[in-house]
Amino acid sequence: MPILRNIGLLARCLPAGPQGEIHPIPRAALAWNEGVIRWIGSDRDIPSEYRDWPTDDAGGRLVIPGLVDSHTHLAFGGWRADEFEQRLRGRTYLEIATAGGGIGRTVAQTRATPTRELVGRCRGFLTEMARLGVTTVEAKSGYGLSVEEELRILEIYRDLSGGSQRLVPTLLAAHTIPTQFRANRDDYVRLVIEEIVPRAARGGLARFCDVFVEESAFTLAEGRAILGAGLAHGLRPKIHADQLSDGGGAALAAEVGAASADHLEYVSESGIGAMARAGVVAVSLPFATLYLGARPMPARRCIEAGVPVAVATDFNPGSAPSYHLPVAMTLACTLQRMTPAEVLKGATIIAARAIGLEEEVGSLEEGKSADFALIDADSVEQWLYHLRPNACVKAVARGREIASGPGSPSQ
Amino acid sequence: MPILRNIGLLARCLPAGPQGEIHPIPRAALAWNEGVIRWIGSDRDIPSEYRDWPTDDAGGRLVIPGLVDSHTHLAFGGWRADEFEQRLRGRTYLEIATAGGGIGRTVAQTRATPTRELVGRCRGFLTEMARLGVTTVEAKSGYGLSVEEELRILEIYRDLSGGSQRLVPTLLAAHTIPTQFRANRDDYVRLVIEEIVPRAARGGLARFCDVFVEESAFTLAEGRAILGAGLAHGLRPKIHADQLSDGGGAALAAEVGAASADHLEYVSESGIGAMARAGVVAVSLPFATLYLGARPMPARRCIEAGVPVAVATDFNPGSAPSYHLPVAMTLACTLQRMTPAEVLKGATIIAARAIGLEEEVGSLEEGKSADFALIDADSVEQWLYHLRPNACVKAVARGREIASGPGSPSQ
Repeated sequence: MPILRNIGLLARCLPAGPQGEIHPIPRAALAWNEGVIRWIGSDRDIPSEYRDWPTDDAGGRLVIPGLVDSHTHLAFGGWRADEFEQRLRGRTYLEIATAGGGIGRTVAQTRATPTRELVGRCRGFLTEMARLGVTTVEAKSGYGLSVEEELRILEIYRDLSGGSQRLVPTLLAAHTIPTQFRANRDDYVRLVIEEIVPRAARGGLARFCDVFVEESAFTLAEGRAILGAGLAHGLRPKIHADQLSDGGGAALAAEVGAASADHLEYVSESGIGAMARAGVVAVSLPFATLYLGARPMPARRCIEAGVPVAVATDFNPGSAPSYHLPVAMTLACTLQRMTPAEVLKGATIIAARAIGLEEEVGSLEEGKSADFALIDADSVEQWLYHLRPNACVKAVARGREIASGPGSPSQ
Repeated sequence: MPILRNIGLLARCLPAGPQGEIHPIPRAALAWNEGVIRWIGSDRDIPSEYRDWPTDDAGGRLVIPGLVDSHTHLAFGGWRADEFEQRLRGRTYLEIATAGGGIGRTVAQTRATPTRELVGRCRGFLTEMARLGVTTVEAKSGYGLSVEEELRILEIYRDLSGGSQRLVPTLLAAHTIPTQFRANRDDYVRLVIEEIVPRAARGGLARFCDVFVEESAFTLAEGRAILGAGLAHGLRPKIHADQLSDGGGAALAAEVGAASADHLEYVSESGIGAMARAGVVAVSLPFATLYLGARPMPARRCIEAGVPVAVATDFNPGSAPSYHLPVAMTLACTLQRMTPAEVLKGATIIAARAIGLEEEVGSLEEGKSADFALIDADSVEQWLYHLRPNACVKAVARGREIASGPGSPSQ
């Protein structure tokens, strides 16, 4: 039952209000016990019942809700640094995939990696993410692409879920058509619908069902069928939409009531309108924009149309080989013209909504999980503008410290 | 007299050869004493005289020359995070400057900051840069803009120069026309030429003289006169050239034999040709490109024309508020289409050439300074593609360890 005092600025990030409204409290204090926030307010107004709780000193720093990375492909074998170099030399993503690279190569490398090694890698990534202040992580399958391998990855996520950092598993069996099904893609779609989705759902191994709707991956009709099967088994839909071209993915997300549509570099005006009416969250992935040299997703148009915009890493070994969410947040400012306050809400409460956890995490409110990060900066603007290796000095999840260190000090 | 063994890959980065040729030695060893490299080669071929030297184990990691940040504005007071936010909302750099922001605001904040505090801030930044593997830093004045204040900043750099990390001071009195000289700019140019340059040179306080040639700063004629005065006093020229428009800065750099022309987002084909013929280094500053939403400098065209391209941070509180050189290097890949090998040479031997230190640092060769960094990656491509908070686990300058830590592990 500690109380954190001498907080220079506490950003509550309540669900209400516009995306740029972070509900700040200057000179604040925060009390929690049993993993739950009990009281938040001005340091001058601490109620008597909390005054003798053990005190920690925030040193005048910034406190934010624990960051939520709402889109990662956490479990994968190998890397693809050589493809990064080839893309810089002018080869396209599709040329590389056709020549045996791309997602298909990571599928082969993942299948060849023992479970214990995959678990160790994921654990390493999660530890590094915690140091950056990330307390909740969505993690997709999608480098298995067979019944056994997709379930193996989801089981890895289940086994990693015991800690204080939250892990939200998403089934992405529909990541791409596996090589051996290229000639008879319908068979793979049927396998996903009739076997993989039901078994993942029955085992309680996934909360969401995701589909990559794109010319090189799944059609709108296939996506609709797979997401329908997911819904029938209790898995909420998510869509990789309109990343390389406007394929109508945003409209499909609205039609099926998806929690989020992700990427959206090429989303149309009508797609944005449909998402706004249906309450779909847009998940922006600025690392993929940067690494693929793509055009940025239209974050400003989304926000103006009433679509909340989350910011996530898309961490994967191809188009977004970084788990550094704060750098992705700075990129969301510079590439997508979001303000630091909008980006902070996009990596906390809006990200929580994108993965269905908005009742538990993503904002600092009495009754919610005590998930927060202590940032060495005096404002959100200063934090995200002064890009440093790591400005987080402490991360707390379910009331327990999960990471701490000197961070990169503000000067 | 230690010897570092079990190096997975050692990138020598010799001055010769194309920009993408980093002269790698796999399974290498590196011996040094008295701050100087004595032997480099394959771990199997260590000569008998080094075999009983105290051994350190590189753990199979990558060893690179100590990074050289060849363009920073290290000493400044205050920050300008609020202007970052205003630019994201659509205000232009020039609008903000006209309203009392921009360089002029940092000048006022710097003048108001006590010397001891400025020294402390610089020391903090240098420590963080060392952790990233940066062993040499160029540092410009330019937030003083009066005789006393410009000399005060250069004296701060002199006082910081005692350590193992090298600091190269540049006089940038011609950063912008100070407010009180707006009506009579010739008087300020005369002050720079007749007072500031001679006094900085006489005191041995600067090696380079730099001018910001741009519509909003100094004309070509003013730049030519100031750089000429610098040359007459033994200061080598550098130019902030063609950042916001093609102002002929690259051609002027060639004309006066500048060590480097920096920025170059809008450099013309003829400017590139002139630089190639004169042997001027192009210093690319991808953070400024990112933060100002500008078009990237044409690195590929420069390299093809025979102009070596350095990569630096431009660290300053306005357009490039980050000292994270490895992130700037990844941005040079993604924004400027340079390969990781080209970028590594651009932040080592080519950067050293941009600041006149190519005989001392920037490559790993017998007889040169023992400046190197140990990176947790198995290749340069893996390091720069897998963007992490900090992949450097040890930095050595003049043979002495100046930073070490766990880094962000490779998986």
